[in-house]
Amino acid sequence: MKETIIHTEDIFDGRVVHLKVHDVELPDGNVSKREIVHHGGAAAVVATDKDNRVLLVKQYRLPAGKVMWEIPAGTLEPNESPQVCATRELQEEAGYKPLDLIDLHGIHPAPGYTTEFIHIYWSKEQVKSELKQDKDEFVESEWKTIAEALDMIEQGDITDSKTIVGILRVARELKI
Amino acid sequence: MKETIIHTEDIFDGRVVHLKVHDVELPDGNVSKREIVHHGGAAAVVATDKDNRVLLVKQYRLPAGKVMWEIPAGTLEPNESPQVCATRELQEEAGYKPLDLIDLHGIHPAPGYTTEFIHIYWSKEQVKSELKQDKDEFVESEWKTIAEALDMIEQGDITDSKTIVGILRVARELKI
Repeated sequence: MKETIIHTEDIFDGRVVHLKVHDVELPDGNVSKREIVHHGGAAAVVATDKDNRVLLVKQYRLPAGKVMWEIPAGTLEPNESPQVCATRELQEEAGYKPLDLIDLHGIHPAPGYTTEFIHIYWSKEQVKSELKQDKDEFVESEWKTIAEALDMIEQGDITDSKTIVGILRVARELKI
Repeated sequence: MKETIIHTEDIFDGRVVHLKVHDVELPDGNVSKREIVHHGGAAAVVATDKDNRVLLVKQYRLPAGKVMWEIPAGTLEPNESPQVCATRELQEEAGYKPLDLIDLHGIHPAPGYTTEFIHIYWSKEQVKSELKQDKDEFVESEWKTIAEALDMIEQGDITDSKTIVGILRVARELKI
């Protein structure tokens, strides 16, 4: 079933998005084009506490045209491990340091056109930490009960893929 | 929290990916750049049967560099409703016509850099239909039990975001 790249054209080399168009040879020998965003990957954290609450952040997302509720997450820096990235983002976006990180595997958000893989971790225990927000980030955080977050998913009020996957995975583990 | 677009540069206008770089004014008055894939949206179907099986398709995904298991899905054609798209894709990719489509809302797969929204539907009943695969599609379909699909998610063998969201949502509804 494999596709083999026979030619690559570099289209754009940005801060987050690196766009290439590949000519690929299909299994039947025909040739097709693939427009692909090359992305460095990301890490996200479902942080829960002993009262079955989950830590969410909200921020304006221009591509969606709305303020969105998400789990803390961010893009891997060069040579950064996903665990270090997850720890850093939880601190930067919400002011907590995780004491544990359970690997829930992760997601390819849109494997048709982006190489991005988002590692998803579950942290059951955190300590408060100094908030070190990036200049560019306008993010507010809030603890919500997992039951409330599940209701927001069912109502369509949470639409971010990593956030829905993370919350549904943890709710299943906790039998909520 | 809103960001306001003050200038847009068109970078690439492809078949699937339309890339623009926007200059935006942030809430504090500063200006930043946003690299955004403008995407027409998509629809996906979790098709289940009376034996608690779910219909999966596998195909090679160049951005992930591997064969992936996914629920049937595809990109909306111009002016196509998501319901019509979901019905068409289930027929084209797996050879079934849904008799019902329950709206499970959907996902923004990567709201940091793509406008894509994937509508996710649940079909509890289908009839066999003629397979009308696109020339370009090399897709195989298979019924798996929902229990097996859940195990594949927990093991990291299913990593596609819409597929994990769809299966976890339906498993929750069916109390599996």
